[in-house]
Amino acid sequence: MYLKEGDAAMYESKLQDERLMYDLVVQRLKDRGVELEDIAQITLELQRKFLPDLTFETCLLHLESVLEKREVQNTILTGIELDVLAEKGLISEPLSMMLNTDYGLYGIDEVLALSIVNVYGSIGLTNFGYVDKVKPGIMAILDSKTENSKACHTFLDDIVGAIAAAAASSIAHRYTDTSKVIEAIKKSR
Amino acid sequence: MYLKEGDAAMYESKLQDERLMYDLVVQRLKDRGVELEDIAQITLELQRKFLPDLTFETCLLHLESVLEKREVQNTILTGIELDVLAEKGLISEPLSMMLNTDYGLYGIDEVLALSIVNVYGSIGLTNFGYVDKVKPGIMAILDSKTENSKACHTFLDDIVGAIAAAAASSIAHRYTDTSKVIEAIKKSR
Amino acid sequence: MYLKEGDAAMYESKLQDERLMYDLVVQRLKDRGVELEDIAQITLELQRKFLPDLTFETCLLHLESVLEKREVQNTILTGIELDVLAEKGLISEPLSMMLNTDYGLYGIDEVLALSIVNVYGSIGLTNFGYVDKVKPGIMAILDSKTENSKACHTFLDDIVGAIAAAAASSIAHRYTDTSKVIEAIKKSR
Amino acid sequence: MYLKEGDAAMYESKLQDERLMYDLVVQRLKDRGVELEDIAQITLELQRKFLPDLTFETCLLHLESVLEKREVQNTILTGIELDVLAEKGLISEPLSMMLNTDYGLYGIDEVLALSIVNVYGSIGLTNFGYVDKVKPGIMAILDSKTENSKACHTFLDDIVGAIAAAAASSIAHRYTDTSKVIEAIKKSR
Repeated sequence: MYLKEGDAAMYESKLQDERLMYDLVVQRLKDRGVELEDIAQITLELQRKFLPDLTFETCLLHLESVLEKREVQNTILTGIELDVLAEKGLISEPLSMMLNTDYGLYGIDEVLALSIVNVYGSIGLTNFGYVDKVKPGIMAILDSKTENSKACHTFLDDIVGAIAAAAASSIAHRYTDTSKVIEAIKKSR
Repeated sequence: MYLKEGDAAMYESKLQDERLMYDLVVQRLKDRGVELEDIAQITLELQRKFLPDLTFETCLLHLESVLEKREVQNTILTGIELDVLAEKGLISEPLSMMLNTDYGLYGIDEVLALSIVNVYGSIGLTNFGYVDKVKPGIMAILDSKTENSKACHTFLDDIVGAIAAAAASSIAHRYTDTSKVIEAIKKSR
Repeated sequence: MYLKEGDAAMYESKLQDERLMYDLVVQRLKDRGVELEDIAQITLELQRKFLPDLTFETCLLHLESVLEKREVQNTILTGIELDVLAEKGLISEPLSMMLNTDYGLYGIDEVLALSIVNVYGSIGLTNFGYVDKVKPGIMAILDSKTENSKACHTFLDDIVGAIAAAAASSIAHRYTDTSKVIEAIKKSR
Repeated sequence: MYLKEGDAAMYESKLQDERLMYDLVVQRLKDRGVELEDIAQITLELQRKFLPDLTFETCLLHLESVLEKREVQNTILTGIELDVLAEKGLISEPLSMMLNTDYGLYGIDEVLALSIVNVYGSIGLTNFGYVDKVKPGIMAILDSKTENSKACHTFLDDIVGAIAAAAASSIAHRYTDTSKVIEAIKKSR
């Protein structure tokens, strides 16, 4: 079940596997109406007040690195699966009702979202909560679909917000000026 | 270290102990410039769009039950202690700089806040993130103090938001109409 | 969607709803081969080294209070649903393979379990991790089923451990002698 | 406060800053009696049953990558600071008593540890809980010091376990054979 250390051919193959998994996850999001550009747009809005020169391309790059994380991929696959099964009427009651109406006391959608946010540390929590409340761009579209049609986006809604917030954290970690920390260390010696 | 089952006198004494701990935590918040009424106000604003008849008194009651939880009390004592020690210059560098400037990449303030929010389940996450971003009422005052004076509210800021969000969750759990869930269960039989 | 404050008849009805939900969750566990007594046994083993007089009945009582929590109920319904759908072959690949083989890098089962443990605070984390590793009693039976048959218990396994750990936390909070804390407060005045 | 995109000289300087921060954290652990080798030993014991060829050097490499994460560094600095301040008698009551006796209902030490474990996803939870219970190697030494002397290791104890568990997760993510996942994807097309 485990690979041997130093087996170069197997790692080569593992890297290819990881690319395939990444492509699958991106396709699943697309199949549910979410393009990476929609998510990158939310990340850009979250971060450009702190980093005025931030480009859309940089947001996309950080978003891609979020989607390469295995735990993020597994969360997306699981959440979307539950949404789809709820739409198809394959979930038993009362869970079916909770998913199909985005029931406010359900909470497991937030639990899954948190596991995405945590990948870049807790500084993403605030951004996640904020976008989950104000529902910018694609999030409003997903949210309205739940109310008006048979589409179920109970998990997807939070997942999109969590990915956008995680990418914002990744950008913050990359671009924040950390020289103050170092000055403080040096001063204390 | 453990009490014996069925020892009534000891439980009587434990209840008194718990009251004393509650009073201490409320006093510590007060000493740092935060009245329960300030927090209840945030909770009221978060929930009255869903529950128009919600009163300030009800918010206060739910807030008190949040503050009776031991994990919430321990988080408050720990966070305030770190703020106070940072003000007094008793924290070593570079942690001292991070606390005294509310350094954006620190993240441990959000970690502690999350442990408060979690007490009433993950539905509080969104409200916490939202108030941490828009900083209503007392939170704006605490936040501005950090910028302009020697006061350090790096932890208190997030703790206040987390307590307000937890009380909002408690209210949502209490007042949300759950009859739909039951209808769904009955329909499925 | 929200109840009015002070509407006694509606709360009466809500309490009945909550009883029905509790019964449903207990029945779902039973349908998957888990009796409350199996879980209480794990809790008893975790706590009796600290509290030698602890009875099985007390463990059952605390377990019941864990199962009355809405977030715990929602987690159980969601996890068992995924296990059942995986057994029935209704989950798409590669998620189906991950669930049916209890794939080690999946991780979402631990994420859901954590949301149960958190209900009684983080002191349950250690107990959860421990039982998830040593798999006492019913947990070993659930785990072996996954290997040998078509049964899928990827989520149930962790859920049982999390409930047992949460009940152990509840007992620890109830029976730990807290007088030392109070002495410390009084000494400091 | 933010760096400009594409400013190569500043990133060069940021990389040097990150090295300095890493060295500081390793030194703090050393000052408290914990060598990286002590932690790597725990990681090796956790993982070698799954990966018989795993070497001590590989464990050290993964451990170093854990310690390069900013959230892990901030957690270590905060936890050790609280331990040291408790030893020096600079913490107010009742928090001082809780830290100096490693009080079982405190819980904030587990909260901080969880933020370390989460960096490599929730699969580390089980390993953390397990080592926190059985206390292998250096963890037993730290734990006994708390009982017998004036040393306070309430946070350090859990931090060491969390770092060892996170490194074990990192190894599991790196070496687990993922070809089954890819076969499942391909089969489903």
